[in-house]
Amino acid sequence: MELIDGKATAAQIRKEIKEEVNSLLKQGHKAPHLAAILVGHDGASETYVNLKVKDCEEVGFRSTLIRYEDNVSEKELLNKVIEINKNDEIDGVIVQLPLPSHISEEKVIETIDPSKDVDGFHPVNVGRMSIGLPCFVSATPAGVIELLRRYKIETEGKNCVVIGRSNIVGKPMSILLAQKKYPGNCTVTVCHSRTKNMKEVTSNADIIIAAMGQPGFVSADMVREGAVVIDVGTTRIPSTETKSGFKLAGDVKFDEVAPKCSYITPVPGGVGPMTRVSLLKNTLSAAKKEIYR
Amino acid sequence: MELIDGKATAAQIRKEIKEEVNSLLKQGHKAPHLAAILVGHDGASETYVNLKVKDCEEVGFRSTLIRYEDNVSEKELLNKVIEINKNDEIDGVIVQLPLPSHISEEKVIETIDPSKDVDGFHPVNVGRMSIGLPCFVSATPAGVIELLRRYKIETEGKNCVVIGRSNIVGKPMSILLAQKKYPGNCTVTVCHSRTKNMKEVTSNADIIIAAMGQPGFVSADMVREGAVVIDVGTTRIPSTETKSGFKLAGDVKFDEVAPKCSYITPVPGGVGPMTRVSLLKNTLSAAKKEIYR
Repeated sequence: MELIDGKATAAQIRKEIKEEVNSLLKQGHKAPHLAAILVGHDGASETYVNLKVKDCEEVGFRSTLIRYEDNVSEKELLNKVIEINKNDEIDGVIVQLPLPSHISEEKVIETIDPSKDVDGFHPVNVGRMSIGLPCFVSATPAGVIELLRRYKIETEGKNCVVIGRSNIVGKPMSILLAQKKYPGNCTVTVCHSRTKNMKEVTSNADIIIAAMGQPGFVSADMVREGAVVIDVGTTRIPSTETKSGFKLAGDVKFDEVAPKCSYITPVPGGVGPMTRVSLLKNTLSAAKKEIYR
Repeated sequence: MELIDGKATAAQIRKEIKEEVNSLLKQGHKAPHLAAILVGHDGASETYVNLKVKDCEEVGFRSTLIRYEDNVSEKELLNKVIEINKNDEIDGVIVQLPLPSHISEEKVIETIDPSKDVDGFHPVNVGRMSIGLPCFVSATPAGVIELLRRYKIETEGKNCVVIGRSNIVGKPMSILLAQKKYPGNCTVTVCHSRTKNMKEVTSNADIIIAAMGQPGFVSADMVREGAVVIDVGTTRIPSTETKSGFKLAGDVKFDEVAPKCSYITPVPGGVGPMTRVSLLKNTLSAAKKEIYR
């Protein structure tokens, strides 16, 4: 069994990004610039946004954090997005979700210029990904694909089972892994809450992508000997062991599943760090105008 | 075994559309109006476009056929699309594919206003479909979904195998059938040319959507007793039996597969007529501004 070290891989990618930023600066270009919008004071959202800002600093990006109280109007938020769209100094923009219920997330996302949509949530980017055109792929699926690539995991003709059909993980994972390139060319099965024969399906998988958001959902009896298991679950559960009062739980019962695997990602330290670094990669791409001119 | 009669179902839907057009006219609205652009003289393309125009007439739509020679410039074509986008008299526009190699199909499709993109090929519509937002779904997948609905075929928790991963059939089918509504909630597997254990996978399917474009690909030994088989294949093969000199061949060996099925679509007379009628449904939706305001 080989552990897929997302933390180390992400550190390596951050180093590569930093080098590229330095070379951009030397060529007289400006540093990539990410704007993040945070509404309200949700603890998890604050943590995520702060990490994103910190990540930017570490690789030499500029970042701008724009904060609103819970009672900001939809119109004010949309106007800010439009202002950022027009601002040539900013390369990428993210709006931390969820938003308060009086604001339409759909409207906010669709207002972001697709060429600055480094979260890859805009329908134009989702559609282009599905069609196989250049686009911003959302951070978690992009991170998983990058892990498979860096660990040179064979995917062609493999049975890949994606557990979960969310818009930000399950669906894009299933599309990417069936695409006609590496990593891809898998025979992909999407399972979800309505799947009746879950164990039978997962037991046939060469590669399992667990993205249900249910701690410990995948047990050893659901996994074939030699399978590759990617655990996307990052549910925050209360804990007395940590200073913050919570810890992250994956969708896989790691202790019992790991011995059966050829490769497995831990939680924390697997997909999570790759998700974070994927946002940086997208922001760098946006700054370099690699996807949209 | 029950035959799924796409021809009769499509005729019924055309009747429903015609009634709705009459009621729109009575309310003082104008008739839905489809514009079709055809470049060059490819035989199959001419046939398809002519059928679309004829279908419009039959249900009381207006239609406009715009023809160009093979040597039309990309710019001229794009300008025509932009002109149609701005023309309030036209509700929907399609550009018959394929286009000559000097014209970028991607650029042409992305120039169509998503609210008039009744083929559902624009990334905005593809993305919105993937996310589960209101959108134009391309005609063939929409037609298959409608057949499943009208024949009240159970889908929840069923194993559905989609053979083929094309942008216009395989991918959208797999997304739609996994969605959280009826018809949908299937456990969906996407197979394709790189799938190693095709027979094993299809033998486990409650529902097979055959969309490889390979005549006779699905044989009886690949199908489980009681399966639902939807044959999307419509390959034109030479024939001495028909006036036109060709006939349509499905992806399924109908004669040997049909006896094992609970439901099966024939070719011709199955998915084909539903594809045609789906374009009319999308055009009616566009005229009624049901999806985009």
